[in-house]
Amino acid sequence: MSKTTVERRALGPLDVLIAIEFAGICHSDIHTARNEWGGTKYPIVPGHEIVGTVAAVGSGVTKHAVGDRVGVGCFVNSCGECEPCRTGFEQHCTSRVTGTYNSVDRDGSVTQGGYSTHIVVTEHFVLRIPDGLDPAAAAPLLCAGITLYSPLKRWSAGPGSKVAIIGMGGLGHVGVKIAAAMGAEVTVLGHSLSKRDDGLRFGAVDYRSTEDESTFKELRGKFDLILNTVSVNLDLDRYLSLLRLHGTLVGLGLPEKPLSMRAFSLAMNDRAMAGSNVGGIPDTQAMLDFCAEHGIGAEIELISADRINEAYDRVVASDVRYRFVIDASTF
Amino acid sequence: MSKTTVERRALGPLDVLIAIEFAGICHSDIHTARNEWGGTKYPIVPGHEIVGTVAAVGSGVTKHAVGDRVGVGCFVNSCGECEPCRTGFEQHCTSRVTGTYNSVDRDGSVTQGGYSTHIVVTEHFVLRIPDGLDPAAAAPLLCAGITLYSPLKRWSAGPGSKVAIIGMGGLGHVGVKIAAAMGAEVTVLGHSLSKRDDGLRFGAVDYRSTEDESTFKELRGKFDLILNTVSVNLDLDRYLSLLRLHGTLVGLGLPEKPLSMRAFSLAMNDRAMAGSNVGGIPDTQAMLDFCAEHGIGAEIELISADRINEAYDRVVASDVRYRFVIDASTF
Repeated sequence: MSKTTVERRALGPLDVLIAIEFAGICHSDIHTARNEWGGTKYPIVPGHEIVGTVAAVGSGVTKHAVGDRVGVGCFVNSCGECEPCRTGFEQHCTSRVTGTYNSVDRDGSVTQGGYSTHIVVTEHFVLRIPDGLDPAAAAPLLCAGITLYSPLKRWSAGPGSKVAIIGMGGLGHVGVKIAAAMGAEVTVLGHSLSKRDDGLRFGAVDYRSTEDESTFKELRGKFDLILNTVSVNLDLDRYLSLLRLHGTLVGLGLPEKPLSMRAFSLAMNDRAMAGSNVGGIPDTQAMLDFCAEHGIGAEIELISADRINEAYDRVVASDVRYRFVIDASTF
Repeated sequence: MSKTTVERRALGPLDVLIAIEFAGICHSDIHTARNEWGGTKYPIVPGHEIVGTVAAVGSGVTKHAVGDRVGVGCFVNSCGECEPCRTGFEQHCTSRVTGTYNSVDRDGSVTQGGYSTHIVVTEHFVLRIPDGLDPAAAAPLLCAGITLYSPLKRWSAGPGSKVAIIGMGGLGHVGVKIAAAMGAEVTVLGHSLSKRDDGLRFGAVDYRSTEDESTFKELRGKFDLILNTVSVNLDLDRYLSLLRLHGTLVGLGLPEKPLSMRAFSLAMNDRAMAGSNVGGIPDTQAMLDFCAEHGIGAEIELISADRINEAYDRVVASDVRYRFVIDASTF
């Protein structure tokens, strides 16, 4: 990772120029920067957890004004016309969503992300960061936050519902906070109990080790919703057995090998295994408003730009509590 | 399969004695009779698609009266106290549902099913067969019908929704009729097109061969709900690709090998793979009432008791359109 100059496009009528203040580091930035998924178009500027202030707006912009604090998440364009776009699920645009970086935009250019001083984004894809949200702690909400909020909302987490979150890293820890604020009874299923105190502080009522066999016996048939934030292949039958009637296990990572589960694990209690890919613009704004209302931000370690390479190694080693955010003034 | 005598229990205060008129043959009868799943307790009387008339009632019975036409499905007892039981999902009783045959009842006896002249069942598990339902064609509704109705209802099949049904056998053909009557746009995905005319007659608007590669190209992202009635392991990724935003693929069979699918197939369009195990007593009654209202019965071949062994071989060879029903007067 080194310093370079990329050209942002000239401001179109619906564009917003954002002076970036903070950019979160997501594990997928690392996969892409290191070309671990293939298809990386170098030079690449990663970053899709972006918070800044509006520096200029195009002539037709009505949603944002100069000086507003705003955010940008995982995508910056879509067709706007298909059913998913029209219903606020732009990430599932049938003609292809444009990712915030390493993605071919609708004008043919390759997008560059948020590890940068400025970015130009069409107003529809620019979120309002409400007053009361710490802007640095808000950055990871644009990816990690919405990734957890979206299934919690879709499966109606709230008072009376029991939610488990597998893994309490960058994604999981925000999920604990949001689910607890929604009123759900939250249990963390962690590899070890090393983050137990943090989990309880974030709002979980229980924190169990998945290495302990009694966890699966005692929690059998308990949960309405389990969110899996872990990207390695798990023994899904064991986790499905923890779901009560009509419960759903939602996979948020993309493990390399296919998912495998017995049909019986789904037939028992009429369970479901679902996928969920971030969230659309309306849900992302609702998530930010919700987090502001409940004082929720990510737990972050703020770093200067010269420490990104070191931070990458520490993310890979799971040595961060819980998300790195780059101070963009140091670029 | 040969004739024998089994003792039914003396009528308890909440029991109903049913004089059986018709009993459907379900593929699971064959698996159990032939001990293909293990655990068969011989001698065994299969049969969980039962229609008859009430011959006598216990002193406390209020739900049914002598002479009523009634039915019994896949289960005949449950604890009545757990959450699934209290909310009408007795099949998921947390302390164990009692199957209609080859199952240990709560009094320790082993249940015997519907290939018989009489059966004694607790009133709660006895369904009302509404006037207007042909009693022989109604028998398969007690298992095949509710197995399809339950997920169609749970995932809100109706006007504006697009439903696909994989396989048009004993289960699938009833599903086509029910889904079409609910107002959904129904497509059958069959191995071949040999039953196409029947499918369109039952209410499907389209019938495609899964051997034809264009099927998967042309129907990509089309369906809200796909019901899989096939018990062999399919390439689930191909079928998941046919689901639109938030669509669900429901497996109704129990293939031997684990289900396998790529995480990406679920993340794309936020899809789900679900299981569904028959349906509870309230849903089963609602299904029977719905079928009576819409003139829906199974397509059946009525046989005498001496042809059961032959019928079993023909079911295994998929040589039945679409369900065998035994005339119980021939026992």
